[in-house]
Amino acid sequence: MNTQEALTLFREKQLRINSYRLALTTMNWDSSTIAPKKGADYRNHMMAILSGELFSLYIDPEYIKLIEQLAAADDLSETESIEMKQMLKELNKERNIPKDVFVKFAQLQRDGETIWEKAKETSDYPLFKPYLQKLIDGTKRNISYRNDTRSTYASLIDDFETDMTIEKYDEFFALVKEKLVPLIHAIKEANIPAPAFLSASVPIQQQRAVVELIREYLQYPKDAGLISESVHPFSSSFSAFDNRVTVRYHENNFTSSIFALIHEVGHATYNGQVNPEYQGRHIANSMTYGMHESQSRLYENMLGRSKAFWSSLYPKVVELVDALKDVSLDEFIFGINYVTAQFYRIEADELTYPLHVLVRYEIEKDLFEGNLTTEGLDEVWADKYESYLDIRPQSTSEGILQDVHWSGGAFGYFPTYALGSAYSAQFMNKMSQDLDIDKLMENNQFDQINGWLKDNIHTFGGLYTPEQLLLRITGETFNPSYYIDYLLNKYSELYKIKL
Amino acid sequence: MNTQEALTLFREKQLRINSYRLALTTMNWDSSTIAPKKGADYRNHMMAILSGELFSLYIDPEYIKLIEQLAAADDLSETESIEMKQMLKELNKERNIPKDVFVKFAQLQRDGETIWEKAKETSDYPLFKPYLQKLIDGTKRNISYRNDTRSTYASLIDDFETDMTIEKYDEFFALVKEKLVPLIHAIKEANIPAPAFLSASVPIQQQRAVVELIREYLQYPKDAGLISESVHPFSSSFSAFDNRVTVRYHENNFTSSIFALIHEVGHATYNGQVNPEYQGRHIANSMTYGMHESQSRLYENMLGRSKAFWSSLYPKVVELVDALKDVSLDEFIFGINYVTAQFYRIEADELTYPLHVLVRYEIEKDLFEGNLTTEGLDEVWADKYESYLDIRPQSTSEGILQDVHWSGGAFGYFPTYALGSAYSAQFMNKMSQDLDIDKLMENNQFDQINGWLKDNIHTFGGLYTPEQLLLRITGETFNPSYYIDYLLNKYSELYKIKL
Repeated sequence: MNTQEALTLFREKQLRINSYRLALTTMNWDSSTIAPKKGADYRNHMMAILSGELFSLYIDPEYIKLIEQLAAADDLSETESIEMKQMLKELNKERNIPKDVFVKFAQLQRDGETIWEKAKETSDYPLFKPYLQKLIDGTKRNISYRNDTRSTYASLIDDFETDMTIEKYDEFFALVKEKLVPLIHAIKEANIPAPAFLSASVPIQQQRAVVELIREYLQYPKDAGLISESVHPFSSSFSAFDNRVTVRYHENNFTSSIFALIHEVGHATYNGQVNPEYQGRHIANSMTYGMHESQSRLYENMLGRSKAFWSSLYPKVVELVDALKDVSLDEFIFGINYVTAQFYRIEADELTYPLHVLVRYEIEKDLFEGNLTTEGLDEVWADKYESYLDIRPQSTSEGILQDVHWSGGAFGYFPTYALGSAYSAQFMNKMSQDLDIDKLMENNQFDQINGWLKDNIHTFGGLYTPEQLLLRITGETFNPSYYIDYLLNKYSELYKIKL
Repeated sequence: MNTQEALTLFREKQLRINSYRLALTTMNWDSSTIAPKKGADYRNHMMAILSGELFSLYIDPEYIKLIEQLAAADDLSETESIEMKQMLKELNKERNIPKDVFVKFAQLQRDGETIWEKAKETSDYPLFKPYLQKLIDGTKRNISYRNDTRSTYASLIDDFETDMTIEKYDEFFALVKEKLVPLIHAIKEANIPAPAFLSASVPIQQQRAVVELIREYLQYPKDAGLISESVHPFSSSFSAFDNRVTVRYHENNFTSSIFALIHEVGHATYNGQVNPEYQGRHIANSMTYGMHESQSRLYENMLGRSKAFWSSLYPKVVELVDALKDVSLDEFIFGINYVTAQFYRIEADELTYPLHVLVRYEIEKDLFEGNLTTEGLDEVWADKYESYLDIRPQSTSEGILQDVHWSGGAFGYFPTYALGSAYSAQFMNKMSQDLDIDKLMENNQFDQINGWLKDNIHTFGGLYTPEQLLLRITGETFNPSYYIDYLLNKYSELYKIKL
């Protein structure tokens, strides 16, 4: 079979695989947003079977042979060649897992999420614990089939962020700790109380109206996107023209839904601005987790928490939200950047955020390296929060049970959150050389910002590694000092602290 | 392989099939309720592929052999034996369709629905016409593989309603025409104007509150059901514990969403009250269309438009809906039973409803028997409305494009709507001998009514044919006189007309 014949046959099989993936994406979305609870058992069972069907297609010897042939071919276009090499790499990760092991793990992932939801509601870590243990064991087992010489956690790290290592993360987090902790301490000592409006009661209906206002401002399209509600906000890419987000409304924390929205729309915009010719191909969605997070963080923090973002929006928000009647724009900006140690990662301010991630990174690493077990892990979690942030969660729902990730077996995911923030600072530095970002936001021209992101980052999908993209766009490889400097400058100024 | 071994293997394959069906059910639901429009092309393509995958499982020779063995086995339980014989009958309908024909038709069904939605929005019958033609041709072609000696339309009729024939429908509709048309004429001559509240402007938010009130009253469970919105209201059974409905809100026709809700919850309650041991088995969902419609019509008309239904509810509704402030309960009851010739089947009153169905039945029959073509069919439709109901639709969106059914290739479906209404009158007659229905509704004890329906009808799922069920419950086979008498009595009394 020549390369073109192989490619045609491969694309046909890829479309078939895509049909299963879209089915599971849709079922996941449905399950997380609107599905009635009592249907969960049957639904989880069916999804596990369908995941097994999908897995069978992934490990179909004919399909694998095509990928191998195409990854070795020298007469493909450059994008096709990169795509096939990426696919071969992915394939090698999973190809030796026996189907029954895979199906069992898929069922465990679904059960894990269902049990986690229940456990979170009632702060019942012991209910979740055996599932967490099984998920860790299952993950180790899955990775053992790879015959990788690295540790399980090293492999997981690389899965979520191409070319990342434990060593690089250790260095990065050491820098975060060294530079940021003193500033956080100084801010704590300044002892400035939280603005009252942050915890004011804001009816959900007013919050929905604000969310709709911001949707328009960000130019997140209604005919190619959707805003729904779920326990934990997330974004989900159905296809080039269907990229959705969820938020969650808290009556006494209305800025939560605002920044969840901006964050998730950052993800959705990334997927929605990939070259549409890539639709259905691996590179349409093979960006790393860190890269994806860089775009959501850039939206949420670099843009969404800036004064320019709100200058034209804020008067309209005040009209919608009674609790802001007497709050000036400057007070609002200070409030949405207010630094405080609290329990929830997704509610965390920009400055303490990487320490939330650090807690998870250290626990994951120790769990997989054998230095910790699930027994009493809720207490380990609480100890770390006490030691880094000087607060101790009083229940596991505000502690170890707050995040969905582990319940679905996603270990190695968390550190990409901090890394993404660091990438975003490096991209932002470059974008602000090319565009007058503040002026564009003040003039309600978010499309210009989206345009820059599209042309420089989004359109390429997952074609390039993070290091390649950073080099291509900013002229240098990953340099965490943009992130550290950005945080030090911004927060020392906001809190009038001399460093 | 002995029967028990065959049954075990069969159940395994059935579960696998179910996983595809739940996927497609979920994607259909998503597509009809919330999915962004621009994702339709890709989504339709993926759904067509997945339908093809499902079809391959249906026609897998091993699976077919198991069904054949089990349908012939004499050592199965009675329910299992009935189930397997039903499956063999279904199988024989589709087994000879080549896969490529099937996949192409599935894609056509999806495209048809997408195009229909567009055509309906702009009243553009010519846009839809070629798809309608292809859907008719495709349906004929699909049925041609059966080697059935009956006409295509006769086969379609039997597909939607076991053991029904064109002759029986012709007789039934002749009776409907003979008995009801004079009453409709007399009511028209009485010339009583429509109560103004029917077309009053009622904000969607007030309508939503009423819908929620009725949901509670009907005891439609939140943890096993869901109310969403779509262009055309429908119900969808995901599993034993997940049965959903949609409604549509019209600002100037607020009773529309109320009766759409009651109707669709009638369907959802049927599915939700099937013996849960049947979950995932063919008989859980093999009730005929007429039987299903009998339960929704019983809810919507026999119960939902009665005075007893509203006696305790109505004061609460008045609190929610400003437009009802000065409307008495009796005026409301007259209004929701007001008889008028208008264009939309789903908005039709109970009395003119069967004539809407008749128009569709006659057109379908003539299309398939070769007495009509799609060319100019919008005019044929308009002519029939003028001749039966004395009104002529001025656009195709209020004419031939109003219903979704044909756009998905569902021919032979419509007549079951009228038949279901007729079944429901026969069931209602029996239920009113066993229960004091009015008192139960007045006392807010809808669970007792649901209990009767469950024990007598719902729990059996599709185990029995309509005739078997009617005989079992009412002591006689289908007798349309209950329906005719019910309508004649109710409406002659309401309009004070001597027959």
